Amino acid sequence: MSTVVRAAIIGSTGYGGVELIRLLAGHPQVEVTSVVSSSSAGAPIAEGFPHLNEIRTDLLDDVDPALLKSKADVVFIATPAGVASKITPLLLAEGLKVIDISGDHRLKDRSEYETWYKKEPAAQEYLDQAVFGLCEVYGESVRGADLISNPGCFPTATLLGLVPAVKAGLIDPASIIIDAKSGVSGAGRGVSLGNHYSEVNENFKAYKINKHQHIPEIEQVLSDIAGKKVVTTFTTHLVPMTRGIMSTMYASMTGNHTNEDFISLYRNYYEGRPFVRIRQNGVWPATKEVSGSNYCDIGFAVDPRTNRVTIVSVIDNLVKGAAGQAIQNLNLMMGWDESLGLRFVPVYP
Amino acid sequence: MSTVVRAAIIGSTGYGGVELIRLLAGHPQVEVTSVVSSSSAGAPIAEGFPHLNEIRTDLLDDVDPALLKSKADVVFIATPAGVASKITPLLLAEGLKVIDISGDHRLKDRSEYETWYKKEPAAQEYLDQAVFGLCEVYGESVRGADLISNPGCFPTATLLGLVPAVKAGLIDPASIIIDAKSGVSGAGRGVSLGNHYSEVNENFKAYKINKHQHIPEIEQVLSDIAGKKVVTTFTTHLVPMTRGIMSTMYASMTGNHTNEDFISLYRNYYEGRPFVRIRQNGVWPATKEVSGSNYCDIGFAVDPRTNRVTIVSVIDNLVKGAAGQAIQNLNLMMGWDESLGLRFVPVYP
Amino acid sequence: MSTVVRAAIIGSTGYGGVELIRLLAGHPQVEVTSVVSSSSAGAPIAEGFPHLNEIRTDLLDDVDPALLKSKADVVFIATPAGVASKITPLLLAEGLKVIDISGDHRLKDRSEYETWYKKEPAAQEYLDQAVFGLCEVYGESVRGADLISNPGCFPTATLLGLVPAVKAGLIDPASIIIDAKSGVSGAGRGVSLGNHYSEVNENFKAYKINKHQHIPEIEQVLSDIAGKKVVTTFTTHLVPMTRGIMSTMYASMTGNHTNEDFISLYRNYYEGRPFVRIRQNGVWPATKEVSGSNYCDIGFAVDPRTNRVTIVSVIDNLVKGAAGQAIQNLNLMMGWDESLGLRFVPVYP
Amino acid sequence: MSTVVRAAIIGSTGYGGVELIRLLAGHPQVEVTSVVSSSSAGAPIAEGFPHLNEIRTDLLDDVDPALLKSKADVVFIATPAGVASKITPLLLAEGLKVIDISGDHRLKDRSEYETWYKKEPAAQEYLDQAVFGLCEVYGESVRGADLISNPGCFPTATLLGLVPAVKAGLIDPASIIIDAKSGVSGAGRGVSLGNHYSEVNENFKAYKINKHQHIPEIEQVLSDIAGKKVVTTFTTHLVPMTRGIMSTMYASMTGNHTNEDFISLYRNYYEGRPFVRIRQNGVWPATKEVSGSNYCDIGFAVDPRTNRVTIVSVIDNLVKGAAGQAIQNLNLMMGWDESLGLRFVPVYP
Repeated sequence: MSTVVRAAIIGSTGYGGVELIRLLAGHPQVEVTSVVSSSSAGAPIAEGFPHLNEIRTDLLDDVDPALLKSKADVVFIATPAGVASKITPLLLAEGLKVIDISGDHRLKDRSEYETWYKKEPAAQEYLDQAVFGLCEVYGESVRGADLISNPGCFPTATLLGLVPAVKAGLIDPASIIIDAKSGVSGAGRGVSLGNHYSEVNENFKAYKINKHQHIPEIEQVLSDIAGKKVVTTFTTHLVPMTRGIMSTMYASMTGNHTNEDFISLYRNYYEGRPFVRIRQNGVWPATKEVSGSNYCDIGFAVDPRTNRVTIVSVIDNLVKGAAGQAIQNLNLMMGWDESLGLRFVPVYP
Repeated sequence: MSTVVRAAIIGSTGYGGVELIRLLAGHPQVEVTSVVSSSSAGAPIAEGFPHLNEIRTDLLDDVDPALLKSKADVVFIATPAGVASKITPLLLAEGLKVIDISGDHRLKDRSEYETWYKKEPAAQEYLDQAVFGLCEVYGESVRGADLISNPGCFPTATLLGLVPAVKAGLIDPASIIIDAKSGVSGAGRGVSLGNHYSEVNENFKAYKINKHQHIPEIEQVLSDIAGKKVVTTFTTHLVPMTRGIMSTMYASMTGNHTNEDFISLYRNYYEGRPFVRIRQNGVWPATKEVSGSNYCDIGFAVDPRTNRVTIVSVIDNLVKGAAGQAIQNLNLMMGWDESLGLRFVPVYP
Repeated sequence: MSTVVRAAIIGSTGYGGVELIRLLAGHPQVEVTSVVSSSSAGAPIAEGFPHLNEIRTDLLDDVDPALLKSKADVVFIATPAGVASKITPLLLAEGLKVIDISGDHRLKDRSEYETWYKKEPAAQEYLDQAVFGLCEVYGESVRGADLISNPGCFPTATLLGLVPAVKAGLIDPASIIIDAKSGVSGAGRGVSLGNHYSEVNENFKAYKINKHQHIPEIEQVLSDIAGKKVVTTFTTHLVPMTRGIMSTMYASMTGNHTNEDFISLYRNYYEGRPFVRIRQNGVWPATKEVSGSNYCDIGFAVDPRTNRVTIVSVIDNLVKGAAGQAIQNLNLMMGWDESLGLRFVPVYP
Repeated sequence: MSTVVRAAIIGSTGYGGVELIRLLAGHPQVEVTSVVSSSSAGAPIAEGFPHLNEIRTDLLDDVDPALLKSKADVVFIATPAGVASKITPLLLAEGLKVIDISGDHRLKDRSEYETWYKKEPAAQEYLDQAVFGLCEVYGESVRGADLISNPGCFPTATLLGLVPAVKAGLIDPASIIIDAKSGVSGAGRGVSLGNHYSEVNENFKAYKINKHQHIPEIEQVLSDIAGKKVVTTFTTHLVPMTRGIMSTMYASMTGNHTNEDFISLYRNYYEGRPFVRIRQNGVWPATKEVSGSNYCDIGFAVDPRTNRVTIVSVIDNLVKGAAGQAIQNLNLMMGWDESLGLRFVPVYP
């Protein structure tokens, strides 16, 4: 493998795929050599994405493992659920490294996948092989891996906000309630009445309450960290904005902990990790403060009246919640600085 | 008092005030005879509010109880906190009826007001006299009252979503967690960096966590309904939209209740009340479905995995959360049909 | 025909149709007796439009002229182009009055329709019979008519802003340039990438430059008023908002006219017409100032440097640009006050 | 001067200033050594701009030429009008290079500045010295200059869309009409009712018609290019979005030119310039296609019916319209590749 890694992106015409193109354009050690789309193969990518005019003049490739082998070292898969499980074995067999941004390799238990995704799960050997790429929690395992399962957007914001407290025993895992909110890009580029501008604008709605497919992914990690089965209450809401996720999380505290206790714990846990920022006492992050960037920002509000803590965690769903974390995983896989090519400032205002 | 009630609106240049003007323009038994603003007295109201051109050609009056007595039978007060407590005694002394949309007469305990509002509270006799005008819960007491304290926007959405379940004992009051979201108009028309378009747009943020002045108002009613002191966890968020509130509420159930149990209970509780609509099983309301109208729509999601229920309640903060409910209270005070002048269809899309 | 007119709405599941339902719910002399949708016939209308819960509990009817005859006196047609031309003859044959909100009966010249709409035009006799319902210009002809062609949204804003000046000869018709902007609801409820929230939000784009099907409609009226063929330059833009149209219009003046000349001319031309409001010197209307209402607001900016005038005209595309003007036409047809049921205040903020 | 240029930013707490910080963070040969704000000197910049947490930990400096001399080689001035004219002489006297993003050095005629800005103009010698930094038109003069006047946002979009056609004589300069639209960030970070979210959202409005201070700047350049005095009609509109400008421009053609003629002319004129992209026939750019980037995208629509051409030009007002072009000017001043540090992909969606 050369010092410049050649990358292919399957699903280049979705929001996760084009975000990979945007971010990798500035990466000093990665070159995107193939943009792939089964539905639009043969067309110039800039035709459907005019913002790429004169930036990418190449045509979309079809999904062809042998072709990808000839053009790339690593393949990002940014497709809807049910595609990566089929193509990953072929890509690995060609000796390619794979970073799967879809949900296909996240749940270790095949029956859970069937229950929540209503699709045929991946083969068990690939589920066993896949490393869950929540970089700040499982980063050690990412190094040298060949198959990474990139976490979902809600799990990323939620787990980075909960893991240190669960691990340290500051909160009761059985009490966790997660109230999540997402911008519209999280639902992808496919058209539906649900993302029609006139229906979404000036509207705020809840959806998939207790039914979202990211629930088992969150519980799988929390159970792993807690060392016992954790079940949560999880609600998702659609916010009239394009990018951004906030998870507002509630839990009963195991003692009279203070905001400072949480801040100190989290700063310690995330020490040396460039993309998690802990807010000072009395301040909570807003989604715009991480927009377009790979940051996850977290703040706390302890309430002595109820002995509960409220934890607020925000990310850009397309960056830290998808393409950005995927690149962070690539950096870790390759043994590079995990922030390589990712140190851009949030877009504000 | 004539069959047509003459109304004055103090605070006509705020969002609550102009919304009263909009709604009352179609009321068959109310005439707005005085629009009042201490800051802009003497100016034509249409100057600052061009949407009122040729609709209201009158000038703004100053705050003058004797003048108001000569022009009106009832006075709506739609000012920031701290004003109504001073002027209400003067208006009542003139024999005027008062509907206070501000927070000044909501908390029966003066020390609670001082704690949460950081201002001088109203005199105890007026707090005792004021009827808390949450129409569907305390409507009986509104009839014939002279001083109504109109509920806050968050308390309206929240309490209509919780009261039947608390009263019937289906949920444990000690477990209640309220995750509330509001459009920007809820913060009023005063300018600040917090409502600058470029700061709010494409942004979602939490604010005043566990510190919002609507918390004691919610707890006062829940405690009254539960027959014991109730303390809650309450978070507010700002949504990049102008109108609308959603309260997403979480509670532990006292038994194995189903969505149908909640739906049936709530439909029964609100029977005959025109402005509360209960969604069918598996469906939750969105804020746009009540926009511009006086409805409060409610839906449920029982989760057997955690034995918790999630309750979703939405209103238009300027209508059911302010001006609309104030008119509903006027209707009840006068012994009229509570929906008089309020039966307009939500503005969609 | 009874004193209460019974109305049917074909195309009740489009934005124009549901807006008719909203507006007619408050009309004192109209009852909507049938909501019609060929695509969703048999389903409760509130299923797809939850804001109508408990407001309309009826099922959608199919498009059946005999059924409509039995239930209605007048039929509003709010369908995409190409439908009204086929069904109108059947409805008129049943003795029903028809108000066509689609573009099918607007162009008197069949070949123009073919050129701009790329569809089969209506039969000439119906084009001849149809009265172009731009109320403030052709209202006299509407009275007693059986078939009204309701103007398009862009033509309504544009023509109300141009007709008095063209008629009085203050501007040179050959110099007219129209720069129009519309909210997204103007494109209807059908889903497409063009109205996907994530594509429209935080975006401003031009479309159909010199190709919009409203161009011949505008030129037909301007030619009629000017007494000679008028050709215009017309650009449409999509604004990231749901409702509202602004036409910014430029023309060379025929003399040294002032803002006051235009204001005076227009106020005179529209005297007694309740829905056109002329702004004072130096002030121009914004779309929000008419939102949700039937107003068309107009302002002027004469520029002595270039001897051109800029005319700004705004409407709510779904009200004055569609459903509201259709009701205004019904009022005129029936000999009622043209503002009956339409005197609501713009929704602000 | 070292190979890394040290830069100071006066006005770091405005939108132009923080955008400079964002963009320069990725520039390989510039280090921002001082962020300056007279109003907030001494405070950490991240306090008011939480998106900069852990990115910039320094305190804001006061406006002090000697201090700036010790810390920087070049100073960007991103303040409101009236500040740069006073401080620029002091900075130049210290031997610093100055890039003025405000309007203070754009108009060569002092009386024009007084007329349009209503402020005291800069001294004539600095107006004479200042190079107008419209890179693709006057880039040759930028090389080696000490004082650059960075163009306004509207002039940048407008002039890049007009200059080649005016220079080549394809359009009649006397016929030019400019209909411009801007996102809200163009008005800066100061709070006012005009940028209150609830007033701007779901609203589209015209402002400063024929009165905008960018008019003389546009006319100065067009007159220079045309070789004779050019006067234009110019309207500005506020779009409910944060970033983006579109200028839709109309002009009478001097002959029967085609879209291809314009495309060919413009591609030729901008050959080798990385930041102007000309769209193919029948396609026009939207603001989102350049968002967050330094591109200016241009498209054409020739109308044989009126012999006019419509030209559409878009930029991100904070990048190509301010901070990005300022950096492009720095690159040119230094003799570097003009795209250094600016080759990022537009943020989409």
